[in-house]
Amino acid sequence: MTPEQAYEELLRRMKELSLLGNTAGVLGWDQEVYMPSANAPFRAEQLSLLAGMCHQRFTDPVVGDLIAKVEGSSLAKDPLSNAAVNVREWRRSYDRSKKLPQKLVEEMSRVSSNAQVEWVDARKENKFSRFQPWLEKIVGLVKEQAECYGYKDHPYDALLEDYEPGLTCAQLDKLFPPLKERLSTLVKKIGSAPRKPDTSILKRKCPIPEQQDFCGKMVEAIGFDFGKGRIDVSAHPFTTGLGPADTRITTRFEETNFENSFFSTLHEGGHGIYDQNLPSTLELYGTPRAGAVSLGIHESQSRLWENLVGRSHGFWVHFFPELKRAFPGVFDDLSLETFHFAVNHSAPSFIRTESDEVTYNLHVALRYDLETALLTGKVKVADVPQAWNEAMKKNLGVVPPTDTLGCLQDVHWSHGSFGYFPTYTLGNLYSAQFFQAAEKEVGPLEGKFEKGEFTPLKKWLNERIHAHGQTYRANDLCKKVTGQDLSSEPFLGYLERKFGGLYGF
Amino acid sequence: MTPEQAYEELLRRMKELSLLGNTAGVLGWDQEVYMPSANAPFRAEQLSLLAGMCHQRFTDPVVGDLIAKVEGSSLAKDPLSNAAVNVREWRRSYDRSKKLPQKLVEEMSRVSSNAQVEWVDARKENKFSRFQPWLEKIVGLVKEQAECYGYKDHPYDALLEDYEPGLTCAQLDKLFPPLKERLSTLVKKIGSAPRKPDTSILKRKCPIPEQQDFCGKMVEAIGFDFGKGRIDVSAHPFTTGLGPADTRITTRFEETNFENSFFSTLHEGGHGIYDQNLPSTLELYGTPRAGAVSLGIHESQSRLWENLVGRSHGFWVHFFPELKRAFPGVFDDLSLETFHFAVNHSAPSFIRTESDEVTYNLHVALRYDLETALLTGKVKVADVPQAWNEAMKKNLGVVPPTDTLGCLQDVHWSHGSFGYFPTYTLGNLYSAQFFQAAEKEVGPLEGKFEKGEFTPLKKWLNERIHAHGQTYRANDLCKKVTGQDLSSEPFLGYLERKFGGLYGF
Repeated sequence: MTPEQAYEELLRRMKELSLLGNTAGVLGWDQEVYMPSANAPFRAEQLSLLAGMCHQRFTDPVVGDLIAKVEGSSLAKDPLSNAAVNVREWRRSYDRSKKLPQKLVEEMSRVSSNAQVEWVDARKENKFSRFQPWLEKIVGLVKEQAECYGYKDHPYDALLEDYEPGLTCAQLDKLFPPLKERLSTLVKKIGSAPRKPDTSILKRKCPIPEQQDFCGKMVEAIGFDFGKGRIDVSAHPFTTGLGPADTRITTRFEETNFENSFFSTLHEGGHGIYDQNLPSTLELYGTPRAGAVSLGIHESQSRLWENLVGRSHGFWVHFFPELKRAFPGVFDDLSLETFHFAVNHSAPSFIRTESDEVTYNLHVALRYDLETALLTGKVKVADVPQAWNEAMKKNLGVVPPTDTLGCLQDVHWSHGSFGYFPTYTLGNLYSAQFFQAAEKEVGPLEGKFEKGEFTPLKKWLNERIHAHGQTYRANDLCKKVTGQDLSSEPFLGYLERKFGGLYGF
Repeated sequence: MTPEQAYEELLRRMKELSLLGNTAGVLGWDQEVYMPSANAPFRAEQLSLLAGMCHQRFTDPVVGDLIAKVEGSSLAKDPLSNAAVNVREWRRSYDRSKKLPQKLVEEMSRVSSNAQVEWVDARKENKFSRFQPWLEKIVGLVKEQAECYGYKDHPYDALLEDYEPGLTCAQLDKLFPPLKERLSTLVKKIGSAPRKPDTSILKRKCPIPEQQDFCGKMVEAIGFDFGKGRIDVSAHPFTTGLGPADTRITTRFEETNFENSFFSTLHEGGHGIYDQNLPSTLELYGTPRAGAVSLGIHESQSRLWENLVGRSHGFWVHFFPELKRAFPGVFDDLSLETFHFAVNHSAPSFIRTESDEVTYNLHVALRYDLETALLTGKVKVADVPQAWNEAMKKNLGVVPPTDTLGCLQDVHWSHGSFGYFPTYTLGNLYSAQFFQAAEKEVGPLEGKFEKGEFTPLKKWLNERIHAHGQTYRANDLCKKVTGQDLSSEPFLGYLERKFGGLYGF
């Protein structure tokens, strides 16, 4: 078999895997948005069968042989060629999947499935002790995973690889401490600023059908293609790609929380725009060459549209009149400045997902510190509530009154997802760095937003980021696009300028 | 391996096939109701992959060996035991699937996929000649199928087996001629009756959101369980079971055609109630023991709720006041009698799916005559339009002005589904025979409907029909439940009484 034949055969097999993987995607989407909940046990069996079939097909030793045939051949000579990129990523995933013993995979699946149920109840009852034994099991299994994968410096590095290939603690340890410091200073300045926004206006009653219309229009305005996607309602907003012309976003609506519904929709719209603009030719769809780089890069796209665009002054110069028309009588008495200040309110709070641009990364930093400490044993699971509250006091100056509002708030640990949280912060940092680079090339963007022009930014993202698929690792892409390694400077500069201006310091 | 072990292994394999089959079901449902149409080619590949996987797994020679191990063992001794029923039906399907050469299956799939596209265009352009070469190919392939399956008396018997196991032309040839005669007489009596309903009232404007509410309430009132199912909108109404607690019906709404929306919903609700009340234990779900008997029996359930219940006087005694409330100002000026007469209007028309209880089976009889004649060569494909129009003249006294309103109206032939149509008539006949039997045991039902009591009928159907799954073949079930073979007497008696009363003859 020639390397060319091996590559063709790999493409054929991976195409089938992508058909199956997207089939599971449809089942998962349906489960969250439309399936009667009584059918959950049957759906779980379907998903488990498909997952097993995908795993078995991907880890077939023949796949390893085929990859080896292409590696080192002339096909993979140019590291930026489609074949080289695909084989590089297939190799990475193949080797990783071979490193975990089946028993460990099954044990994690079993434990996390139970742990989620217990987490839901522990959170409801505000009873950490109920979740504690499960978290202990999970930390144990996660440590085992890290040992199986192997690592150079820190066991956490082995886990980060699942979400942000190539990222290490060494990099995060350089990134987080100065970020925390500058953000804490900003939080204090905002706290003692003379001006305060009137956030009560965001709780005004907005009928849900009108919210749906308005949010749909906004997502379309920034560039989401409803000819190749749709928007539905689910308990927790998410985005999922189900085919080359089928990207689905979900959101939720609350009558007295327009802000949350709107920015959630814009956030998922950003994820959706990334997904819709990855390569979608029949040859490449479903291969790494046509895939997203990492969770961090994906999050950069959602945060960019949600915050750097959606919370900008220019955006509301254009859309505030339309908002007033969409909700007659609700916002009529407000000035643009009052409204824009309100959607940029900032104050320490307990819940990460409800926090603002300034405080968000302090929540993430806390989780990063805690996860690494749990892995090395510096913090015991039994001490998590105390450690959590101390870090909240230190990072944000507030202590949650209950564990439900504290260490029990996130679902990630019950899934066994250690190493996921830092990608949220990477997303925020990348978003600002990309935005800065876009303005250098396209010119100032706020003025365009004022005129409702979002295509120049979208086109820039399409060409500079989306079109590359997984050709470059996250930091390489960042360097190629912005000329520099990932840095928190653009993000901090953006925050300090915007919030200094709004709060008057 | 003992027969017990073989049966366990069969259950395990068939369980997996049911998980996969229902996965394809979710993809198919999604395609019709929510998927962006641009994604159709990718979805087709997914469905084709799953179909291939299911076929391969089911026709694995090991499956044949396992079936043989159970057959003739003590497990299958009692023909009404779960194991005996399952093995009987698995054998039937296994043998049939082995009889068609792969090449013929693929050829039919390829041809019918193209034929559908051509049929859509031919219908749009009212140009039979465009569809003719495809229909010729299909008739050729269908003949080949019949030869591969084998038959005793008529090639059509081999095809009927796919939709109505055990049914033969010999039976249909006894059923149809007297049915046609009595129905034609009835059509003439109605045509020359002094009284006529005012059907214009059914075209009054009913807002779609209110139609959705009202239809949902009605379907729930007759017993559809929304805790284990849902209702959505699609171009062509259908029902699909996606899991033991997940039955989905679809319908469509037209503002000026309340009648069509309402009775379509009730029809699918009847299919849904059957699906929801088949055995759903984890052991049996997905096996023949928990499956529907045949298309005819399925159709009997939909037609029973649509017509014998939904078009009954008692039903509207109870619900007409609610209908008036649901559409304020729309039906206020009407008497119950006027409305009830209108939803029971009858007159010859061109389109089967829009025809009424009296004329419907005359449309079906035409298709049965034509399909058998095409199979034996008595009618050539090129002569179909002429044969169609002559039969319309003879059966219904009207001739469609175009082929679009004539022989191009149905999708079935382009699918290669020869033998499907007669099950519609069987459904109508069974529905009346079952209804009569229910009244014998439960007492007169109209009086109960007047009080909104539908549970006695539903419970009777649950126990007498649904609970048996595929234990009995259609006619055996009919004998067991009604004490008699299938007969058109109950159906004709019901029609003559109802329409005689309404039209005054």
